[in-house]
Amino acid sequence: MKKETSFILRGDIVYSKAPLEIVVNEDSYLVCMNGEVEGVYTSIPKEFYKLRLYNYEGCLIIPGMADLHLHAPQYSFRGLNMDLELIQWLEQVAFPEESKYSELIYANEAYDYFVEDLKKSATTRACVFATLHPQSTILLMEKLEKTGLHCMVGKVNMDRNSPDYLVEGTKDSITRTKKWITSVKDKYQNVIPIITPRFLPSCTDELMIELGNICREYQLPLQSHLSENKGEIKWVKELFPSADSYSAAYEQLGTFGGDIHTVMAHCLYIDKYEMDLMKKNGVYMAHCPSSNTNILSGIAPLRTYLDYKIQIGLGSDIGAGDNLSLFNVMAEAIKVSKLYTCLVKAELKPITSREAFYLATKGGGSFFGKVGSFEVGYELDAIIIKDYSQGQPRDFQVEERLERLIYSAKENDIVAKYCKGTQIFDCYKSNSLL
Amino acid sequence: MKKETSFILRGDIVYSKAPLEIVVNEDSYLVCMNGEVEGVYTSIPKEFYKLRLYNYEGCLIIPGMADLHLHAPQYSFRGLNMDLELIQWLEQVAFPEESKYSELIYANEAYDYFVEDLKKSATTRACVFATLHPQSTILLMEKLEKTGLHCMVGKVNMDRNSPDYLVEGTKDSITRTKKWITSVKDKYQNVIPIITPRFLPSCTDELMIELGNICREYQLPLQSHLSENKGEIKWVKELFPSADSYSAAYEQLGTFGGDIHTVMAHCLYIDKYEMDLMKKNGVYMAHCPSSNTNILSGIAPLRTYLDYKIQIGLGSDIGAGDNLSLFNVMAEAIKVSKLYTCLVKAELKPITSREAFYLATKGGGSFFGKVGSFEVGYELDAIIIKDYSQGQPRDFQVEERLERLIYSAKENDIVAKYCKGTQIFDCYKSNSLL
Repeated sequence: MKKETSFILRGDIVYSKAPLEIVVNEDSYLVCMNGEVEGVYTSIPKEFYKLRLYNYEGCLIIPGMADLHLHAPQYSFRGLNMDLELIQWLEQVAFPEESKYSELIYANEAYDYFVEDLKKSATTRACVFATLHPQSTILLMEKLEKTGLHCMVGKVNMDRNSPDYLVEGTKDSITRTKKWITSVKDKYQNVIPIITPRFLPSCTDELMIELGNICREYQLPLQSHLSENKGEIKWVKELFPSADSYSAAYEQLGTFGGDIHTVMAHCLYIDKYEMDLMKKNGVYMAHCPSSNTNILSGIAPLRTYLDYKIQIGLGSDIGAGDNLSLFNVMAEAIKVSKLYTCLVKAELKPITSREAFYLATKGGGSFFGKVGSFEVGYELDAIIIKDYSQGQPRDFQVEERLERLIYSAKENDIVAKYCKGTQIFDCYKSNSLL
Repeated sequence: MKKETSFILRGDIVYSKAPLEIVVNEDSYLVCMNGEVEGVYTSIPKEFYKLRLYNYEGCLIIPGMADLHLHAPQYSFRGLNMDLELIQWLEQVAFPEESKYSELIYANEAYDYFVEDLKKSATTRACVFATLHPQSTILLMEKLEKTGLHCMVGKVNMDRNSPDYLVEGTKDSITRTKKWITSVKDKYQNVIPIITPRFLPSCTDELMIELGNICREYQLPLQSHLSENKGEIKWVKELFPSADSYSAAYEQLGTFGGDIHTVMAHCLYIDKYEMDLMKKNGVYMAHCPSSNTNILSGIAPLRTYLDYKIQIGLGSDIGAGDNLSLFNVMAEAIKVSKLYTCLVKAELKPITSREAFYLATKGGGSFFGKVGSFEVGYELDAIIIKDYSQGQPRDFQVEERLERLIYSAKENDIVAKYCKGTQIFDCYKSNSLL
């Protein structure tokens, strides 16, 4: 990590302004001043001659990506036990594994692998679930802080419908959460706490209400799950009969946007009333196609939500999702939207590669502020991709190169990465490769 | 490529016997005699003491995989223009690109990239479409021959409903095909020609009938496409009104199994009569989930076909499929089968990782003979995978490691590869890694 927040990046620059509006600046200069985009130029303006130039000529330069939903402790078993459905999978796989994070020695080793891989990935911003253990959550926050990535990390809350070995008492959950917040709130430059009720079935009303209050008291964001699976929705209806919908239940508990900056993962089966509520309350949606497929949840009608102008980003949802790379998540988002068109509603057009790119960058990035684009004034998150390492007998346009990466980016293709103007790493050897 | 067909491989050995029957031999010895599996042992029997031992201790050793359907000339634009449907995609993307293979200089460069990547992949056997150009098809065959991989390669036939720049006259197509066969038939040790009518709409009845005759005359296999897309099926009905189905049309033209060893790609919308015909005539099915999703064809009801005991293998279908890796194709096969369960028929269970592994190895391998398993007498195709390079805080069982690779195998994880007892490559440095 290199603290030098004014510099110039040279390369083939691409970014989104809107779902269907992409900006391509071939062989151009991206000027970063104090961590923010100052502008993109075809040649370096005189006033910036003294800035350091990082020459990535021939490489693609795109905004860093935002992963709006992932479970760090599940990284260790990604791509395993994928023959199960949500509730089975939680009970047989996820919960037993998460319980191991009561031990700091285990957490330390496991989180090292996760953090190292996240650092190398296309992701610069992430909303992260830890476990219910405050100490290992703090350990994770410290590791992420050191990378320079900007993350929101949550100690998970769960005080009912959970196994004996992975549950808290209601009071205890509240006390531990407050203590955790106090100890981390102003400690880091890059990482902040996010309030994280696992999902409605695993939190009593009393706990949910208090977690909403904590958000308001400490000005903290909130993340949870919404409408992932039909069985889960039925269960919520039983647990909270006074609400007309899953979203309304969160709303009645005071944990559904409005004065709390909120992101909800999945949202597969929400009705028009819930869509209205999300929009009205500014609740973000984390679309997690890989996970939704793997544990048999189904396909979210992404086209409907995009048309409705709900704020949406992508989530890898490690470990029900099998891949940390948001390139992969973009490909899966496109693919499942095509299958939705084929199998469910022919009139809903699939999302395009351009829209998927928007969702992975500016769409999800906006949850973190002016993030995910190279428009003037945006925080400078960038990844540099040496895509020409893939052999090819003909030339491709810049946008074609971007589309191809969605389907075939490899980890090592990312040769440098910046978050809010801080260099996360740079392994590009310009002399040997140009 | 190393010609030494008797040796021993040591490692964690896994292979399929049947769709649900997997055999795991941890830290064992796979004895290969004259290119065939002699047996798997927990220690080396005395009579084999003199054989050379390749020590891949700690690595997974699994059978090489069979890719039953791919288009080599489309490799150069894989993962591009994925926002189109089959017919648009053929006209706007695939056909213009394939026409470039009339030039040997272009074909030479493009096929080098393809062959090099196929060599490094998990695939040891492949059914390959080239283009309609005999010379560049021969060039491709020569390049594949040198790798040691066993491939069936087809000069494509198309004499109608094709663009002016990529079509043959009927007589010309027949003459050129016979000439091509004569010049390649006994030329190679590893590569054989396969008769390749593109699909029924692009071949006149006269051409199809003659291609069937050529198969019988020269004892050659045949590959084509079947029932990929609903519009295509309707079109076939118009072109061939006397047949009750797409399969029946091929059957009436004498190109649907029986005395011709046949593989048909896709088979999404076949009816019970067609399933019976495939089974009766021993026609193989190449299941290509990535392609079927990408160009909006839909999902093949794989569970139905498996229950029906049709012979099935997997196909990458490069370039409508976006990834050459059969690990990736396995993951996609599992995923689309889950979405079929969620969205189409809840009573059809998704396929499991074990079944996907069977399809990628023994299922497709059987199209090439006794291939795709480590049972005694099978031709020894093997890939060696250094999967422990992926960081993990806990140990996994051998079958768990295999499942994880389905979702996250990287190209460089494959450290050595054998086909019919010939070493294709070995970049495993035992001393530095063990």
